[in-house]
Parts: sequence; structure tokens; C-alpha cells
Amino acid sequence: MDNRPIGIFDSGVGGLTVLQEVTKVLPHENIIYIGDTARVPWGNRSEEIIFKFSLQIADFLAERKVKFIVIACHTASSVALPLLKRKVKVPILDVVSPAIDEVLLKTKNLRVGVIGTRETINSGTWRRKLKEKKTRLKVFSIACPLFVPLIEEGLFNHKATEIIAREYLEPLNIKKIDTLVLACTHYPLIAKTIKKIIDEKVKLVNPGLTTARELVKEIKKRNLFSERKQRGEIEIFLTDAENKAIGVFNKILGHKFKVKIMKADLDKYD
Amino acid sequence: MDNRPIGIFDSGVGGLTVLQEVTKVLPHENIIYIGDTARVPWGNRSEEIIFKFSLQIADFLAERKVKFIVIACHTASSVALPLLKRKVKVPILDVVSPAIDEVLLKTKNLRVGVIGTRETINSGTWRRKLKEKKTRLKVFSIACPLFVPLIEEGLFNHKATEIIAREYLEPLNIKKIDTLVLACTHYPLIAKTIKKIIDEKVKLVNPGLTTARELVKEIKKRNLFSERKQRGEIEIFLTDAENKAIGVFNKILGHKFKVKIMKADLDKYD
Repeated sequence: MDNRPIGIFDSGVGGLTVLQEVTKVLPHENIIYIGDTARVPWGNRSEEIIFKFSLQIADFLAERKVKFIVIACHTASSVALPLLKRKVKVPILDVVSPAIDEVLLKTKNLRVGVIGTRETINSGTWRRKLKEKKTRLKVFSIACPLFVPLIEEGLFNHKATEIIAREYLEPLNIKKIDTLVLACTHYPLIAKTIKKIIDEKVKLVNPGLTTARELVKEIKKRNLFSERKQRGEIEIFLTDAENKAIGVFNKILGHKFKVKIMKADLDKYD
Repeated sequence: MDNRPIGIFDSGVGGLTVLQEVTKVLPHENIIYIGDTARVPWGNRSEEIIFKFSLQIADFLAERKVKFIVIACHTASSVALPLLKRKVKVPILDVVSPAIDEVLLKTKNLRVGVIGTRETINSGTWRRKLKEKKTRLKVFSIACPLFVPLIEEGLFNHKATEIIAREYLEPLNIKKIDTLVLACTHYPLIAKTIKKIIDEKVKLVNPGLTTARELVKEIKKRNLFSERKQRGEIEIFLTDAENKAIGVFNKILGHKFKVKIMKADLDKYD
């Protein structure tokens, strides 16, 4: 048993969808979330900078004595996981690796779609990691650069979002994929719109959900469950507390949890 | 007569709409444009940082011996103009001040709309500057945060853009404004969509156009016209040359000009 909190970090507020999945499967755990909203997005930054930011955040979480770190950020998961595993003493889970295995379990025809930000798609991480596990896999990647701004403005079930989603996603239906990865923390918030457009037979993979399930397994294996009987507390730290999108994402947490939002200063971890 | 180039700077590529207006009224001038695409947007940064970035760029332009500097960036115009005028020896025009006078000339009923990014609208600069000149003026400001991403994705005459524009702009029709300021360098690119929605009697103010006209007056007054008979050359420097939106904006220059795109390193001006 271990009552210490779980740490979750992201480059911004998108990782709150991962936090949400974690609270569903681990409702009694305290969670510390930190979003680097002052320096978001990380996707177009150099590896060196992403290392630096990730280590600062890991130090921030270590200081708060977390028992587990979840990297909710796709960029940090792709770039900084090996470094963090080497440098940080607490166990770490990233948002990409468990989803890769999930895709391989789900696809029958080995035709997989991946949608993400332009940076995620251009980096080729998902394609590379999927094909490393199964060379015969066909990966169809599509960048959907307008999804993040539309979601951050709260246009979830909006006609404009659907029109744009159709242009992005209809080409995937021609490719006869049977599995689609939502390779951006924001996208689960428009899963309904995505499902309307994509062939109904296609199975969606939400890496946040997959990671949350993996986290339960790891916590069980290491006997790290908290003894708490009531709901855990959630603390949200942002490096720029003035973030407009927090309101949008806060709604998804649904006020079931006591949420504190605080400003974090990462410079001292330099 | 003076054959030196004119310098135009912006935090990103949006200022190319200002460059376009300048090339229309001053086709024989050489122009150096620099967009700080590596650090865009500036709108949410501290004054101190905006001073630093603006001075770096002014040094970059001074080194290239420009005869005039045009600040195409709304943020830098609002924040750094007095500082730059003090520190830089070449004459400077910003994109806000001439447009303020233009608004006062155009409005008859003293009811003025201002649309811009969330940062520009929240800063209150336009409202404050307009009311400084005429206290009785009623200013109706609306943030249109999705316009920049939509424009940078090339969705100029797109149904989704029109749907979103209707939601932003229809409230202005109820306010009975007679003048509307496009207080963002990107917005002239969707002027057609905006005109479709806004009452046809409303006069649009495009600060880039106003500034270009003011520039002609200033150049005439100071006898700084070039002697060139052929079209001037345009050099575009970006601090991150990988910018996706440059393609979109490049189209608006329409290949009439010889355009060179180069990467600028501003760190050496620290």
C-alpha cells in the first residue's frame, strides 16, 4: 500500500483527458497534474529542449514525492522516455508504448490509421514504432492541425468542427483501415464527431485510456494502491495559470473531484 | 532619392499582408521582411521580452541598412514603439497609430468594432487608444481566436470559416457599428467572408493598408523614394524557416516579385 500521489505531466492541458481516464480506473488515488502551458506546444522543439523541459517537470514531481509518473505528452513520450527512465527513480509510464501494443491486438487486416497534430505526424514516431513491431503493417497517417484549436475553443459538437473533420478523415475510409489511433491528447474530446465520419467497423484507440489501464496493472504489480476509501484529491499545476483552455478541459473532470489549480515555476529546476 | 531597402517586421508571417499593401503603393522599393516564426506569437509575452525581441529585429534590419522600419506586428506596435523610436536611428512607422486616425475619419456614428486575436482584444490597446482620441467613441471588441489557425491552414473561402465567422461577427450587427477595424494582420485575407456577414454599410479599416499609405507620405516628405524603374526585390527572412504558413501567405504575393526566403539568426543581437 502506498498513499503517495501519482504524477501526470503534459506540455499543456490536453493531458487532462489522460488524467480523466486515470481517475476513472483509480478513483481513490491522489493525483498531481502539471501542464507546461507557458511553453506549449513542445512538438516543434529540439530534442535537447524537450529533454530539459521533461527533466524539470520530473524534478518538480519528484519533489512532491509521487509514486509513479505518467507522461501524457505525445512529444515527450516519443523523445524523452529513455532519458527519464534513466534519470528518475520512480517508475514511469508513457502514453505511446501501451497504445502501440493495443493497436497490434486490435487490428485484423493490418491497416491502421493514425491522426495527430502536424508535428506528431511529421515526426513519424507512430509509423516507426508500429512498423518496428510488425513490418507488414500499413500505416495511414493524417495530420489534423485544426482539431486542437477547435477543441481548445470548446467547439466539440460544432458544425464547423464536423465539416473540417470530414475533410481530414474521409480519405481514411477509402484506405479500409480497421483501427484508428487518436494520437493527440485532445482528440478523445471529439471522439463522437470522429465516429460519425469514420466507418463504424473501425476500432478507435485512445492512448490515454490504454495507458490508464496499464497503470492499474503496474500499480497492482508493485502493490502501490492507496488505502484511501474516499475519492482522491487532484492538484493541477500550470506553468502559465492564465490558460484559456483550462475552462474547457475542467468541464470534462465534471466537478466530481476537488481540483486545485496552481501556478508552477520550473526555472528553479534548471 | 534613396535606394536603400525598407524593413518590415512581424512576429510571424501575418505581416506579409502589410508587405503586400506596401508593394502596391511602392512597387519600386526593395523590401526586407523579417518574421519571428520561431517565437510567434508574441501576444502573450511580457513587455520585457517583446522589447528584447523588437530590438533584436531592429538591429538585424539596421545592419542591412534599411531607410525605414515598418512594425507590422500589432503586439510590438502597442508595446515597443516608443522604445524603438528612442533606440533606433531610422524612421519608424507602426501598424496601429495610422489606423487609429483612419477610424476617427471614417466613423460617423462613433460606434466602432474591433476584431483581433484574444491577446490583442484582452490587452485593450485599441479601445484605449481610440478613446484617448475621442472619449465619446463606443468601442465593441470581439476576440476571434480561430481566425488565425483557419487562415494559416488556407481555409479562406471555406464553409467552416464562414460558420465560425458568423458566430463571432453577427453580434456586431446588433451594435450598429459603422466602422470595423481588422486588428490582426491575418484578417484581410478573409475580408470577403467578413464583408458577407457584416452590415454592408460598415466600413472596414485594414491597418496594413492605412500604414502603407502613411509610409508613402513619409517617404515623400523625407525624399526617400528609390530611383529604381523596375520592380523592387523582396527578401523574406524567417527565424524558423520551416514555417508551414509561408506557403499560404506566399500565394498572396502572387509571384510578381522576386522573393528570397532565408533563415535569420537573431541570437547574435543579444
